[in-house]
Amino acid sequence: MRNIKLTIEYDGTNYNGWQYQPQSHVRTVQGLMEESLALITHESTRLIVAGRTDAGVHALGQIANFCTGSRIPLERIPYAANCILPDDIVVVSSEEVDPGFHAQHSARGKTYTYLIWNLATPSAFYSRYSWHMQQSLNVKCMQEAALHLQGQHDFRSFCASGSSVKNYVRELTACTVIADGNLLRITVEANGFLYNMVRIIVGTLVDVGRGKLQPADLAEIIASHQRETAGSTAPPQGLFLVRVHY
Amino acid sequence: MRNIKLTIEYDGTNYNGWQYQPQSHVRTVQGLMEESLALITHESTRLIVAGRTDAGVHALGQIANFCTGSRIPLERIPYAANCILPDDIVVVSSEEVDPGFHAQHSARGKTYTYLIWNLATPSAFYSRYSWHMQQSLNVKCMQEAALHLQGQHDFRSFCASGSSVKNYVRELTACTVIADGNLLRITVEANGFLYNMVRIIVGTLVDVGRGKLQPADLAEIIASHQRETAGSTAPPQGLFLVRVHY
Repeated sequence: MRNIKLTIEYDGTNYNGWQYQPQSHVRTVQGLMEESLALITHESTRLIVAGRTDAGVHALGQIANFCTGSRIPLERIPYAANCILPDDIVVVSSEEVDPGFHAQHSARGKTYTYLIWNLATPSAFYSRYSWHMQQSLNVKCMQEAALHLQGQHDFRSFCASGSSVKNYVRELTACTVIADGNLLRITVEANGFLYNMVRIIVGTLVDVGRGKLQPADLAEIIASHQRETAGSTAPPQGLFLVRVHY
Repeated sequence: MRNIKLTIEYDGTNYNGWQYQPQSHVRTVQGLMEESLALITHESTRLIVAGRTDAGVHALGQIANFCTGSRIPLERIPYAANCILPDDIVVVSSEEVDPGFHAQHSARGKTYTYLIWNLATPSAFYSRYSWHMQQSLNVKCMQEAALHLQGQHDFRSFCASGSSVKNYVRELTACTVIADGNLLRITVEANGFLYNMVRIIVGTLVDVGRGKLQPADLAEIIASHQRETAGSTAPPQGLFLVRVHY
């Protein structure tokens, strides 16, 4: 058996997230990926994924692995899979990895980017890939607020309620806000993420950008351990899983 | 009556081109634009457009005008239209123009850009907005070939057969090929375009890029006045109407 690691890119617009949904006819990225791999390997295939993205969320560098007894040459896998997959899911590369490699458990961290289209007029092209904010955001204040999030904290305030994890402590190694024309790019890098954490961070930074919160409020929001003190959850279509660190 | 000029942006993926198709249920950009304007102005509205883009072709700066007796404030038109229109069609701006302004006849020229995704692996994000060429293209040769197209020529060789225009002479004021990472951007600016002209120019430049044609062959292709001497018609999804010059 070989353990194969895949790098996958997808436009999440037309999918109900990554995760396969048994006994339903909902289209998921995992569902289509496993179908294509079954056709290629002639085996029923189960993928282990680094990040189970939600409906509408995109990926530039999603990582998944699977074990196979098939003898298909490694370099043929992306090509064969892409012939079967729809245009909005692409296997970018494949490599054989150590039998112990596990896309989720071996991950040391991830990088996400969130795009905001910050202009009174919407964009016909970025509507699928960004959150439209008509009101001009104060980027300097957002950048100042982002600094408070960096480092190791209990991020309970930035976790969707109902989550059942035991440890809310994560280390944010980067949290940057960059203006690129009418686009704002918020990039968050951490050793792990709580449920909806990036989207709640973005919703909170946007509240700072529109003056509803001050940059210094971030320290209090973190310390409160209360989800209600943070901003709303930003919509999914602006979010991209950019890279998984091993 | 006021004569209103609109700047319109659209992702053409889900439309059967610009032009309204009577007695059909096909979705066209003009059809949806005219429906939204009828709701706003309470009048039946007919748009005159600068460039009737084909199915799948996009626009960043399409121009259209219409005459209206409605008293709606000018600056309300984009906002009201965008509330009605789907996310992939956006009215970017509106201005009142001279009664003699005609989006098509007043145009002095147009700029189109064509995107090519030039990498063995496809892109999940650019598949809607580019032509995927797996084979690495020789950009230098394409740039050299593009120079032959600049200037005033009879472009009959670059016009879809069956076209019924009388005068095939056009002046290309610019034809550039720029590599931007894995994307190739071919930009063509002219005082007018024949049917499928940009897409045939792109198909021909790609033949140069893959060594099927030499840059110097362009002079002969132009001189031949024969459609068959030029390359194939590049697919629509890479084409963007960028700007109309008045």
